[in-house]
Amino acid sequence: MKKTNSTFIALFMSFSIVAQTDSTIIKKIFNDALTNSKSYSNLEYLCKKIGGRLAGSPQTQKAVEWTFKAMKEAGADTVYLQECMVPHWVRGDKEIAKVFTANAKSFKQVPICALGGSVATPKEGLTAKIIEAIGIDDLKKLGKENIEGKIVFFNEPMDPTFIGTFHGYGKAVMQRWAGAKEAAKYGAVGVVVRSVTLAQDDNPHTGVMAYEDGITKIPACAISTNGANWLSNYIKSDKEATFYFKMNCETLPDEKSYNVVAEIYGSSKKDEIITVGGHLDAWDNGEGAHDDGAGIVQSIDVVRIYKSLQLKPKCTIRAVAFMNEENGGRGGKKYAELAILKKEKHIAAIESDAGGFSPRGFSSSMSAKQKAILKSWKPLLEPYGLHDFENDGGGADIEPLHEQLGTPVLELMPDSQRYFDYHHTAIDVFEAVNKRELELGGASMAALIWLISEYGL
Amino acid sequence: MKKTNSTFIALFMSFSIVAQTDSTIIKKIFNDALTNSKSYSNLEYLCKKIGGRLAGSPQTQKAVEWTFKAMKEAGADTVYLQECMVPHWVRGDKEIAKVFTANAKSFKQVPICALGGSVATPKEGLTAKIIEAIGIDDLKKLGKENIEGKIVFFNEPMDPTFIGTFHGYGKAVMQRWAGAKEAAKYGAVGVVVRSVTLAQDDNPHTGVMAYEDGITKIPACAISTNGANWLSNYIKSDKEATFYFKMNCETLPDEKSYNVVAEIYGSSKKDEIITVGGHLDAWDNGEGAHDDGAGIVQSIDVVRIYKSLQLKPKCTIRAVAFMNEENGGRGGKKYAELAILKKEKHIAAIESDAGGFSPRGFSSSMSAKQKAILKSWKPLLEPYGLHDFENDGGGADIEPLHEQLGTPVLELMPDSQRYFDYHHTAIDVFEAVNKRELELGGASMAALIWLISEYGL
Repeated sequence: MKKTNSTFIALFMSFSIVAQTDSTIIKKIFNDALTNSKSYSNLEYLCKKIGGRLAGSPQTQKAVEWTFKAMKEAGADTVYLQECMVPHWVRGDKEIAKVFTANAKSFKQVPICALGGSVATPKEGLTAKIIEAIGIDDLKKLGKENIEGKIVFFNEPMDPTFIGTFHGYGKAVMQRWAGAKEAAKYGAVGVVVRSVTLAQDDNPHTGVMAYEDGITKIPACAISTNGANWLSNYIKSDKEATFYFKMNCETLPDEKSYNVVAEIYGSSKKDEIITVGGHLDAWDNGEGAHDDGAGIVQSIDVVRIYKSLQLKPKCTIRAVAFMNEENGGRGGKKYAELAILKKEKHIAAIESDAGGFSPRGFSSSMSAKQKAILKSWKPLLEPYGLHDFENDGGGADIEPLHEQLGTPVLELMPDSQRYFDYHHTAIDVFEAVNKRELELGGASMAALIWLISEYGL
Repeated sequence: MKKTNSTFIALFMSFSIVAQTDSTIIKKIFNDALTNSKSYSNLEYLCKKIGGRLAGSPQTQKAVEWTFKAMKEAGADTVYLQECMVPHWVRGDKEIAKVFTANAKSFKQVPICALGGSVATPKEGLTAKIIEAIGIDDLKKLGKENIEGKIVFFNEPMDPTFIGTFHGYGKAVMQRWAGAKEAAKYGAVGVVVRSVTLAQDDNPHTGVMAYEDGITKIPACAISTNGANWLSNYIKSDKEATFYFKMNCETLPDEKSYNVVAEIYGSSKKDEIITVGGHLDAWDNGEGAHDDGAGIVQSIDVVRIYKSLQLKPKCTIRAVAFMNEENGGRGGKKYAELAILKKEKHIAAIESDAGGFSPRGFSSSMSAKQKAILKSWKPLLEPYGLHDFENDGGGADIEPLHEQLGTPVLELMPDSQRYFDYHHTAIDVFEAVNKRELELGGASMAALIWLISEYGL
């Protein structure tokens, strides 16, 4: 199959002189990313030499130091750290789970992992009867009489019919987030949560969960979807089956950590800031490749692209590696706090935290007027596969900027079909990322930043 | 990150009653594909139980029988075969290539594979000095005096700056297709062609090549991109290096084979045919997962979707598994030939032959008026990630229909970033395909067929 360049040519010819200049710059940005980017080799380093890097871990300290250096090498005018205190949860030994038959004479091992923030089981593990609930709403129906003293098995699957997989995630993740505290209110002694993914495999997906003051903290783990399907079937036939699991995770005192911030000074509006970032922390069980090594190396590449092409943006561009998005969001909060303290003028912020997949557009949280401006740039961005500007939402790390300063925020929207296959698992590794898809994401943000810097929102 | 459904709701509400019905049907099609599709398990069977299936091989016969059965099981009103004679080229033993230093005392082995249709080397292999050419145009510059008696190493890389990777493929593939016959005109004794891919790895990419009547047939192989980069560097420092390769591929007499055709009879315009298809043959070195098992199982799923949802299309839908796209196109030619012979009325044909990746739109070869109708359906298709209707081109198997009957033809356009990583290699396997991305492709074709059947083009 051969394709012509007629689309490009036709689009380019229809623009005014000004737009032609923008389109030329955007073309240069993409060309540079697809030929000179260091995103892929940077991601390899971050994943393979540093690896999983949950806030408070020695790996995050290494990651902070490496990112500082990489931002310098990308040519930033300045690089500095923003100190913040972060939670420090550790997983401990590899978790074990077994399902025992009614007579307790045989068992099947199932793949689990502790949810982030969970308390440990007793040292010898926890054994109890198990009861299935399809989401949190089921707890009320089941009632205390059926739940007390048992382990609740939350088994609501993600809805596969949403085209954008984040829609389905938003609903199904509630049982992971709040399952333990809600089940504890009914006297449950532990929870096992179906992994929030559309993939059918043996990988348990971790992720953060929360307790509630005054409610007993019970241990919570994720089970793989294959494990969940098996368990759901099994306990239908063996009502006396028991579930055993053993975890020795714990929450240690808060640790000192950092956001890493790089700047390219604006040529005429130095005090007007456009932030671009991802989060540097990642779950400890994988390498944090899609979540969110991709966002980090793409943000570094934005700096490299501007310097490599000697582009002079009117506004200051800040590439930020946020700390602790996964289980606290302290880096994002600190960033907004300092912005307020220093009376900074933030005209836009963009985050890449939906994986290093082929970009398709940007979601945004901003006024209708600002959204109209964003959409007016569509003809310039569509030749690069950026078609979708309809969805709402910015990234978690820049949400505080939006809430507290009213900054318009955006998130890079890559194709979402594969994201939850890898999300928070041992298979979120460097090899799961495609070089070109990764590079296109960095270029997409660099192009949008150019337009925002030139014309404002 | 949570996304709302506001995009969907806003789009749906803006349509007329008729459009609402269409949008409801399209939503059902996608829901069904994402919950009940057999595409993924069908692809697993085709890849793992049958595997590589080059025209004329015993595997293609198995594939024909399996496809016949699968189309029946999908609920087709009728399934039948269209006989055609196909070329029968066999690779023979695994190919070997070595680069010898000037003194011939040491060597490095490099990964190669025969190009489809190549003649064998002499039994003991072929050894000669090697000369690099960056594309076919370089032959003239080098001249007979530099080429005669040597092996030409075509090393034009794919241009990475095209966003759609097929654009870069179209240019770089010429040295694979015509390199041997053109080099032979200058007295070359063999050719080694850089694999047509943007990936940097050790996989040689096969693909069809052609000889010219009256020109000596010289053996032709592909070398991996890593191998090509190494070779290019090495021969710059060691001008006396020789290249050795050994292949015992051969072309056997033509074999009988088949297109597999399934029909859903049209309710009111039974004689008006909409074809949807992919090609059943695949290179022998991999499993033909993206190229083009994906197109086959998606076409079968179109039948399943219509039957499962009890949709009654006005026109007849024909799902076709074409034979011999890779090295002859005999199935596609036969299909058009029979259409003319039977005076069939073909109102449109759609092929899926660009991989089982996340769909982004349709390319097409049709009149401006027809293209305008196609684009008028964009609001109905955009909620499913189908944004791009600008590109030209239909699939190779339906091109004869277009040329000989003027049938408007389309090709499903999935995201193209990863396609040439796998194309014609040993790693084009089932595991390289994502279940949802595959399913969305089938649903996209089913949705477009609905609109064409209802409103015509």
